[in-house]
Amino acid sequence: MKTYKIALLPGDGIGRDVTAAAWAVLEKTAAANGFSLDATSYPWSCDYYLENGSMMPADGIETLRSFDAILLGAVGWPRKVPDSVSLHGLLLPIRKAFVQYANIRPHRLLPGVQGPLRAAGFDILCIRENTEGEYSGAGGRVHQGTDNEVAVETSIFTRTGVERILRFGFEQARARSGKLASVTKSNAQKYSMVFWDEITQRLSAEYPDVEVTSYHIDAMAARMVMAPDSLDVVVASNLFGDILTDLGAAIQGGLGFAASANINPDRSAPSMFEPVHGSAPDIAHLGIANPIAAIWSGAMMLEHLGEKAAAARVMASIEATTARGIGAIPGKDKTDAITASVLSALG
Amino acid sequence: MKTYKIALLPGDGIGRDVTAAAWAVLEKTAAANGFSLDATSYPWSCDYYLENGSMMPADGIETLRSFDAILLGAVGWPRKVPDSVSLHGLLLPIRKAFVQYANIRPHRLLPGVQGPLRAAGFDILCIRENTEGEYSGAGGRVHQGTDNEVAVETSIFTRTGVERILRFGFEQARARSGKLASVTKSNAQKYSMVFWDEITQRLSAEYPDVEVTSYHIDAMAARMVMAPDSLDVVVASNLFGDILTDLGAAIQGGLGFAASANINPDRSAPSMFEPVHGSAPDIAHLGIANPIAAIWSGAMMLEHLGEKAAAARVMASIEATTARGIGAIPGKDKTDAITASVLSALG
Ligand SMILES: CC(C)[C@H](C(=O)O)[C@@H](O)C(=O)O
Ligand SMILES: CC(C)[C@H](C(=O)O)[C@@H](O)C(=O)O
Repeated sequence: MKTYKIALLPGDGIGRDVTAAAWAVLEKTAAANGFSLDATSYPWSCDYYLENGSMMPADGIETLRSFDAILLGAVGWPRKVPDSVSLHGLLLPIRKAFVQYANIRPHRLLPGVQGPLRAAGFDILCIRENTEGEYSGAGGRVHQGTDNEVAVETSIFTRTGVERILRFGFEQARARSGKLASVTKSNAQKYSMVFWDEITQRLSAEYPDVEVTSYHIDAMAARMVMAPDSLDVVVASNLFGDILTDLGAAIQGGLGFAASANINPDRSAPSMFEPVHGSAPDIAHLGIANPIAAIWSGAMMLEHLGEKAAAARVMASIEATTARGIGAIPGKDKTDAITASVLSALG
Repeated sequence: MKTYKIALLPGDGIGRDVTAAAWAVLEKTAAANGFSLDATSYPWSCDYYLENGSMMPADGIETLRSFDAILLGAVGWPRKVPDSVSLHGLLLPIRKAFVQYANIRPHRLLPGVQGPLRAAGFDILCIRENTEGEYSGAGGRVHQGTDNEVAVETSIFTRTGVERILRFGFEQARARSGKLASVTKSNAQKYSMVFWDEITQRLSAEYPDVEVTSYHIDAMAARMVMAPDSLDVVVASNLFGDILTDLGAAIQGGLGFAASANINPDRSAPSMFEPVHGSAPDIAHLGIANPIAAIWSGAMMLEHLGEKAAAARVMASIEATTARGIGAIPGKDKTDAITASVLSALG
């Protein structure tokens, strides 16, 4: 029987609640589909930091490298450890070290879910650059503390980085409707975004079957709200993708429904799957977090591992659950009840 | 009789259509309110560029400096002149030269207008930093044309620039509900955005009556869609404000309703009033552009000039018009019909 080695990083807060739920669903799915999942769980988190002085051990990245995939809950608990320490000590280093340069986030309404928009028929796949750009971490402060102080933050875009994420976007568009939206702000950021637009133009010659359109980030944010059904695959930089995918989560009814995959497309290192939501300390361990985003992220993991039938089965079970109204209304159902419904829909 | 000297810059495309409409409303309002408006119109635009090789004359800024205010339509016609030339040759230099550091944009539903959200009861005032930050224009490209190419774009935030826009935000919040939302991304941009957060914290001691909350830009974008009625005054950097105000325009029903003011709060130079929408070349001069955003911007100009009763009269006339369904549905009514309705509502 085929066995996949999975590293579980439940992390902080509701990350633990939803990872447990997702894991129950994944194990049952594996059994029913003739493969097995071999999990090793690591307690790396803000609590771990308080005991050990770091978010993960020095060899944490090396430990994770041998796995087939990583399932992560959520990282951060600002009252215990500042985000600048926790995120930069666990989540962000994994994305970078394993060259998970494509962060994929699907945005559509699950059956039975009412979003904040009047519009309902949309199905958007956002692809966010995940390793450089506006979140490169380069910058500094001069004349600190004086009236004359200046802070600079430098966005760094490499040709390799931009080309690979755009290529990934073109491939996804080719596999879906053939429509790709590329998001920049080249009328105001003439170095980084013009560079991105140029590479988009050049690559489009290699993908004559894909119709690519460039949008400014401001216009795209408005479009996601005014005409979400006009969009299919959307590719954007680290910051722009970050903003658009929270907006995507909003239009799909909330963060409880927003799944994501941090993909290393070359498979030179494990990919990581995580709900878009954070650790939500205020509702941690109350048993009321919606596990659907985490379960959906688990389905994306199965898909990535090549277990397409199993992935489809999980998605169908999520949809059967929300279609019955379970887990469909934020705050209404308990984590356990939603998980039980998905498990029973698995058959 | 008090006379205000106004520079009219209709600019390109529908900018001309809506400026004419707004001007008709403003002139009638002035007459009814006992003051007069003395307009000088300048043809600076992409057409002007094609004839003269620049978007405005070399002494354009000096020419504008003597006016009490500037009313602008829209700038840009990409098929004639690239945006990087037209915007950087007319719109952006005015904002910077006249230190119009506060770009104010109100977002609420006019009566009779149905937005894309189910939610209706919101009234948000976005304040965007308008002179520096992510649109500083600093950056460059290295190893150009090679596989090794790197593009950098540097955001520059000065203490003066951040402090003055935040102070402006605190003042606006004080004059409204006492609630201020400050938007950053300090968990991922640790120089610029941490600097902004620090200054926010420090200023909050001077405004004990204002309750200030910091949001990350991604969470704020989601909040504007999920819970717009939880927001009042929102202050953000140049880029974040740009994105949030297009999103604001979307939730208020579209760009046809989105007004804006580029304010020099010290009154050391004229302020400029312009609809958020662009020049929309595809519908230019067809008589179908919605003039409401431009008329509303004109009302903001009267307010800034101290003519509060006249400004209120214009707003009431806009509201009476959309309440009757005129101009309320994008694309339905002609520019002239909407303008005529506002004029007749003025009484
Ligand atoms: C927590 C934060 C650093 C993270 C990001 O911006 O990458 C989050 O917002 C996300 O979208 O995954
Ligand atoms: C045209 C463009 C440069 C401008 C900006 O980003 O400032 C516009 O989007 C706006 O919002 O006024």
